Amino acid sequence: MCGACHGAKGIATAPDAPNLAGQSAIYTGAQLKAYRSGMRKHEVMNVVAKPLSDADIDALAAWYASIKIQVQTP
Amino acid sequence: MCGACHGAKGIATAPDAPNLAGQSAIYTGAQLKAYRSGMRKHEVMNVVAKPLSDADIDALAAWYASIKIQVQTP
Repeated sequence: MCGACHGAKGIATAPDAPNLAGQSAIYTGAQLKAYRSGMRKHEVMNVVAKPLSDADIDALAAWYASIKIQVQTP
Repeated sequence: MCGACHGAKGIATAPDAPNLAGQSAIYTGAQLKAYRSGMRKHEVMNVVAKPLSDADIDALAAWYASIKIQVQTP
């Protein structure tokens, strides 16, 4: 489901969605919890995050963190 | 100033800070405006974003978007 906007490998396909590939699990987990609680607001993400368990969030955050990124060298 | 947490090239050095390298200007600009207005909450970012002009935000967002990233292939 995440892939629709954030891309299959966490490189966003929607211009207003962030890349998640390579973000730390701490950061992604915190954002998902903030969306779930409504502390961080986004029409889609508040709905999508609502049913996630802590374990779901940990797994998603770990998965995106496991995709390593690098700055492209020309 | 951003580099202290987000890294000199937008690859975060602080584990709770996101990478900004390669994020779309639309996304980064929207987040900076949300931090500036207080709509998105973060102790540091709300303070840091407060004095930014729209032009400052556009320039920062464009700069981070100009750093291209790729998923590392093993």
